[in-house]
Amino acid sequence: MRIDDVQFHYLSMPVVRNIGDGSQDALLVQVTFDDGTVGFGECEAAPLVSIAAWCCPMSHSACKPLKSTVIGHEISSADDIRRLSFEVRRNSFDLLQTDHTLSGIDMALWDALGKKTGRPAWSLLGYERCFAKTAYASQLFGDTPQETFEKAKKAREGGYKATKFGWGPFGQGTLADDVAHLEAAREGLGDDRVLMIDAGTIWHEDLDSAKKRIDALKKCNALWLEEPFHSGALAEYAALSGEGVPLAAGEGSHNPSLAKHIIDFGKVKYIQIDAGRIGGLTSAYEVAEYAKRKEVVYVNHTFTTYLALSASLQPFAGMESSYWCEYPVESTELARMLTTRPIAPDGDGRIMISSAPGLGMEVDFATVRRFERKVKIEIDNEAIWTSR
Amino acid sequence: MRIDDVQFHYLSMPVVRNIGDGSQDALLVQVTFDDGTVGFGECEAAPLVSIAAWCCPMSHSACKPLKSTVIGHEISSADDIRRLSFEVRRNSFDLLQTDHTLSGIDMALWDALGKKTGRPAWSLLGYERCFAKTAYASQLFGDTPQETFEKAKKAREGGYKATKFGWGPFGQGTLADDVAHLEAAREGLGDDRVLMIDAGTIWHEDLDSAKKRIDALKKCNALWLEEPFHSGALAEYAALSGEGVPLAAGEGSHNPSLAKHIIDFGKVKYIQIDAGRIGGLTSAYEVAEYAKRKEVVYVNHTFTTYLALSASLQPFAGMESSYWCEYPVESTELARMLTTRPIAPDGDGRIMISSAPGLGMEVDFATVRRFERKVKIEIDNEAIWTSR
Repeated sequence: MRIDDVQFHYLSMPVVRNIGDGSQDALLVQVTFDDGTVGFGECEAAPLVSIAAWCCPMSHSACKPLKSTVIGHEISSADDIRRLSFEVRRNSFDLLQTDHTLSGIDMALWDALGKKTGRPAWSLLGYERCFAKTAYASQLFGDTPQETFEKAKKAREGGYKATKFGWGPFGQGTLADDVAHLEAAREGLGDDRVLMIDAGTIWHEDLDSAKKRIDALKKCNALWLEEPFHSGALAEYAALSGEGVPLAAGEGSHNPSLAKHIIDFGKVKYIQIDAGRIGGLTSAYEVAEYAKRKEVVYVNHTFTTYLALSASLQPFAGMESSYWCEYPVESTELARMLTTRPIAPDGDGRIMISSAPGLGMEVDFATVRRFERKVKIEIDNEAIWTSR
Repeated sequence: MRIDDVQFHYLSMPVVRNIGDGSQDALLVQVTFDDGTVGFGECEAAPLVSIAAWCCPMSHSACKPLKSTVIGHEISSADDIRRLSFEVRRNSFDLLQTDHTLSGIDMALWDALGKKTGRPAWSLLGYERCFAKTAYASQLFGDTPQETFEKAKKAREGGYKATKFGWGPFGQGTLADDVAHLEAAREGLGDDRVLMIDAGTIWHEDLDSAKKRIDALKKCNALWLEEPFHSGALAEYAALSGEGVPLAAGEGSHNPSLAKHIIDFGKVKYIQIDAGRIGGLTSAYEVAEYAKRKEVVYVNHTFTTYLALSASLQPFAGMESSYWCEYPVESTELARMLTTRPIAPDGDGRIMISSAPGLGMEVDFATVRRFERKVKIEIDNEAIWTSR
């Protein structure tokens, strides 16, 4: 089947607030083939910029808009999708936004090929079966230790086997403040639940500040410390990796090489991949395979819709030893309603991965109409993009 | 002085061809301050996408349009520029195009601060004096060995002490074809001129194909082999670095960390930085300092205008041991005419770096008017960007 049309639906909450909630907007990608097959995917963040990368004029032979490579491409096998991913990057490698735009398109291609063949995306990727993942409730620290305690208690009562607290006040105040939050999180969860901590790159390249938190992280038995530094600070990651608390990172990777470098040179034990940034399932699967060889645990990074969540689970669906699943618990109405049904943990806090064709999700077009923002881009008074 | 306004001028040749000539369009950045000071810079490639990154709606607190951080910022010292660069990246790190948009803005800030204080940008960056660079004529291989020979001969007659031939047919045919081109290049140049070879990432991650060319590269006495692999293939770079031909790479780096990793893990001997991609002079200078500590030679990557060339020279202007300068010899009329006077090698094939304030260049607004493309971006029928 041949790619005939690609639509980008820019969805947004009516008001986007200056907070760390990535579910306030979404870029839904809809790919239509000549035989009527339709696939859906989602690009992470900055919808307008990713649309511009799709339709902009060519700058030169290695800086083409994505549409020039994608439209008209034949997709009848997994290898065709892999080939297209390679070609897009080759034809657009001087266009920085390319990887984010490609991500949603690539997801939609696996979704469509799955629907066409009646197979789930994880099967097309190469897995013979899939394994349930254990959800960890992913949320921000409270503004005060008391609030963190309440959130932890609520997560416990919600049946989650694990909870991750991220940034907010963490690392912004004194060491004592951070210790108080860590103790509150552990107390609220109880000793039989798993706790992860996400520093949100707060220490940038400051190894000493990170080291000062290691004792408290050990005391509260944190499974991992996530993103103590910015994603390029590989020397600092490597230096901290020997301190006794496993490190996690990788969400910012926009191609497989970057993720591999975090594994090889940053010495992390958990590699976290956002399929909406790294180039979709094709690239995420490449990292999952690499992580397995290096005995590193693959974890999805997901903070948006159930469509993005389903997509993010496919690349490691068949890896039994990578069993954690980031599960956003504070997402917006837009994110919760984009698909007709939610993905939710079962009574044991586990996420089952669908065996329905493609990504196994159905887009709710009432939600699309409700939240869609109309984009028009003109060059020299000629429209090169108009939302339909 | 306070940043009051930023204009992006999207310039393009009337027809952009599907060839590897990055000078077919340009994104000129014009920053105006409250005291009337004006600075100019240039972003590499995909002008529309970089404009979108400037003006797009916020997605969340770490994915803001650049304008929200830049407008209103006070700039009265070099440290103010460095702080702004840091803040832009912190506020927009989930927006992939950020680094390319930042590049042109950052250049314009150094230009403006230089004009305000009467000092050249290299002096503001921290150098006490500057050193002339030796230009290498940067051009594509001919379609045939005979054509390569003619081009090499012409470069020799043009007075260039060094010439780099890049990609075109190189690596696309047989080993014998490549050897013929290398021999023709050396023959045309003569033995007393320096020859560099740019493979343009043709072997991707294929170490063996690259190794097969090493003997011929040694025979023609190539100073370096540039980009045998894609920029993330650090293991392959490291493996090839021991074969006796120094490696060069780095042009794709869009932040300093990526360039440092190519030095540390890819073992290159020449690090090539495009100031229009890496985040401007601030980030390029950080790499130059790092390269010096690691005894790696810093080289500019420039394939566009004289404004971009002047900007690209500032970060290593004061480093005597980094004396090569990439000099584009096949650029378009647009690139040659954007500024009122060219930068050209002297009789000894050297490029002198201007000691005039800022970047030392004057934009020719007749050229801007002649080549400018008008951009308009609307969201929900409201214009968020209109070229003035």
